[in-house]
Amino acid sequence: MRIVVLVSGGGTNLQAIIDGINNNTIRDTEIVEVVSNNANAYALTRAKENGINGKCISPKDFASREDFNRALVAEMDNLNPDLIVLAGYLVNIPSEMVKKYTNKIINIHPSLIPSFCGKGYYGLKVHEGALKRGVKITGATVHFVDEGTDTGPIILQKAVEVKEGDTPEILQKRVMEEAEWVILPKAIDMIAKGEI
Amino acid sequence: MRIVVLVSGGGTNLQAIIDGINNNTIRDTEIVEVVSNNANAYALTRAKENGINGKCISPKDFASREDFNRALVAEMDNLNPDLIVLAGYLVNIPSEMVKKYTNKIINIHPSLIPSFCGKGYYGLKVHEGALKRGVKITGATVHFVDEGTDTGPIILQKAVEVKEGDTPEILQKRVMEEAEWVILPKAIDMIAKGEI
Repeated sequence: MRIVVLVSGGGTNLQAIIDGINNNTIRDTEIVEVVSNNANAYALTRAKENGINGKCISPKDFASREDFNRALVAEMDNLNPDLIVLAGYLVNIPSEMVKKYTNKIINIHPSLIPSFCGKGYYGLKVHEGALKRGVKITGATVHFVDEGTDTGPIILQKAVEVKEGDTPEILQKRVMEEAEWVILPKAIDMIAKGEI
Repeated sequence: MRIVVLVSGGGTNLQAIIDGINNNTIRDTEIVEVVSNNANAYALTRAKENGINGKCISPKDFASREDFNRALVAEMDNLNPDLIVLAGYLVNIPSEMVKKYTNKIINIHPSLIPSFCGKGYYGLKVHEGALKRGVKITGATVHFVDEGTDTGPIILQKAVEVKEGDTPEILQKRVMEEAEWVILPKAIDMIAKGEI
């Protein structure tokens, strides 16, 4: 299975995918390219260090959002991946891309959907929301991307305990370690093996 | 600690509390009365069989909702409990009672709040909602009751796996067995011991 990974930041989920491929917990899968909207994303360095092609496609480099959208879709069409993985990608996916790649785009979200998801809930804001509501259990979700925000079919979820004294940063780290880095590679492997 | 249990149906959560008191996992706690809105609720039979006073206070037996509310509050005032436990009680708690017994009323809800809670989500409808959204993790929540619906401070939560082929009925049973019957007695014990 040929996958493209889209990522905006540090790329720890990308690293979990690379590790999964290297230690064969993700079977029969190859990352054909890592695409970031951020030229300075450490994810692009990770790609390079692992011999994976990396590319920056940023809205800033285009005259209009439409031009950016067209460039992103053209890049996907050019790569022709079996699966597009949003691994901490903080850019809205063009509607045309969602339509073209139905059931071929997956996203990782750092909560148990439908809690703390949808517009306004991204990155640390998800964990701020969970702590503000005082939940004792949170987690992460891998889901297919549809035209809504975090509304697509759920593939895998994993629960994570909230602990006394957690800050959004501490909770974010625990959710990554205990859930995101587990279920994202697992979901990719299951898709590669045709189990989903 | 003197508690009153309010319940509408079969009373399996009531049974979990009785069992917890009998086997001393709920410490220093006595059920002073079981109150149901339903004269035929099996929970009242359970109360009787366990030598606990049971009483039906039903909206049907009053000329107006206000009269019912007054009677329910009067019953609580008369019993003067340290804690009121809603254990599957499908009646809206009078606002006056919530104000009078702030942080002295707890409720068990069969989902991981804030998922599948609020108006319209009660009983099987909670599990229908979870299955419809296709979540892989659900659970139960014990929370203090405030003037909103399922909006009060969370005391305990426990996650439960959704499985292939689950119906609302099957899922409801698993959530009861794995979560509700565990966290409701535990929350009562923690409150009795002043840990909350």
